[in-house]
Amino acid sequence: RICGGEVIDIPRDNDFKLDIQGIKKAIDKKTKVIFLASPNNPTGNCTTRQEIIELLDTGKIVVLDEAYVDFSRESMADLVFQYPNIIVLRTFSKWAGLAGLRIGYGLFPEEIVSYLMKIKQPYNANAAAKVAVMASLGDIDYLRNNIEKIVAERERLFSKLENIKWLKPYTSSANFILCSIQQDADISISEYSEHNEETLAKIIWRKLRNKGVFLRYFDTPRLENFIRISVGKPEDTDMVIKTLMEVAKNE
Amino acid sequence: RICGGEVIDIPRDNDFKLDIQGIKKAIDKKTKVIFLASPNNPTGNCTTRQEIIELLDTGKIVVLDEAYVDFSRESMADLVFQYPNIIVLRTFSKWAGLAGLRIGYGLFPEEIVSYLMKIKQPYNANAAAKVAVMASLGDIDYLRNNIEKIVAERERLFSKLENIKWLKPYTSSANFILCSIQQDADISISEYSEHNEETLAKIIWRKLRNKGVFLRYFDTPRLENFIRISVGKPEDTDMVIKTLMEVAKNE
Repeated sequence: RICGGEVIDIPRDNDFKLDIQGIKKAIDKKTKVIFLASPNNPTGNCTTRQEIIELLDTGKIVVLDEAYVDFSRESMADLVFQYPNIIVLRTFSKWAGLAGLRIGYGLFPEEIVSYLMKIKQPYNANAAAKVAVMASLGDIDYLRNNIEKIVAERERLFSKLENIKWLKPYTSSANFILCSIQQDADISISEYSEHNEETLAKIIWRKLRNKGVFLRYFDTPRLENFIRISVGKPEDTDMVIKTLMEVAKNE
Repeated sequence: RICGGEVIDIPRDNDFKLDIQGIKKAIDKKTKVIFLASPNNPTGNCTTRQEIIELLDTGKIVVLDEAYVDFSRESMADLVFQYPNIIVLRTFSKWAGLAGLRIGYGLFPEEIVSYLMKIKQPYNANAAAKVAVMASLGDIDYLRNNIEKIVAERERLFSKLENIKWLKPYTSSANFILCSIQQDADISISEYSEHNEETLAKIIWRKLRNKGVFLRYFDTPRLENFIRISVGKPEDTDMVIKTLMEVAKNE
């Protein structure tokens, strides 16, 4: 998103890659911040170092949300030392499993942080979160091992999803996989017809929910025919694949 | 404070009572919100029901921070049922002792809450705070008894402060007492002279800190000769009084 007086969705192509030329065209004098997530949610893809540098070279402040970076190959945090206009945001919600405690941090160039400290709220993170962060950092090997397991399981889930011909999984650097439902696929779902108000993705989402499998469905025009599957344990992968097959066979 | 394009300090008289006529004069078309704390921090005094109704009758939104209301006689929360322009804020930080967990709530007219829900952040209070709130509500008698003890101890502290001739304590409905330091009092503090850059209040604050007693000092022009004392256990009252006497006698 590009924020000026108004908020503009960042242009992306059909594979959800950033449209850098489109972004540059959308920037004007009122543009204050370019806000990006990499890996992006819910698409799972990354913005390249080259692309981020091109955006930094516009002179606008680029905020990079790296919430899912620990499941990816590369962080851009080192750019904070080279550019005065990049902010990198991190969280303990995903890789450390502390989502319920609402704790994260940011990496800022010194000039930007001096402004932020002036408008910062007087209170800091909650006490329970601080204790949990210290415990997490004390057990970092265990957590890193969990990340490795999740990444390995993501690749296993991806290859299984690829084998379902009416699904198209998108390559992911996060702990979830976005899938589009192929409208022309040979799939028999009794409620579905072209005149149905629900998309095929929403019907699948609902049917899986009724069987106790919770996927993420997005009620927005661009993503109305997509589902997002979170990576879990191996038995979770097996269960979601089994249930997807059942639903397609109308069981 | 009155917020429009700019933030204006709410006019108060020398006893920190609201200057209602002054507030009405300061209100203009740009004024969006009148933000009040009652009991007020750090003065400890309350805004009366009559005064709040007069402010509500201006038609501006009045936000009433009742963080310390549990140590006072009366809440204004019932006004939410009668006026469409009042918001009452509450916290578990003070009376329930959950400050470190950052948890509170608000009471809103339905129309205002429908707007707030549209701009609310997607995430809610942290999970540890929710557990602590449920435990607090499950042990409400114990907590109410603590409040009674604090209120009784506040009155004992107040009468002891009244006996120190160079201090003027302000009547408080909160869990602290604000005191002004009388400049003309017969007090011998070696570092103090009229040409000293530090106020008498700041010297006293520093000397008590060096003796392990932490008061609140405010580095603002209007409060530069005030200290705020939090109400603790009876032994804390005795210690703070003893230490104030020592400091005044230059021990």
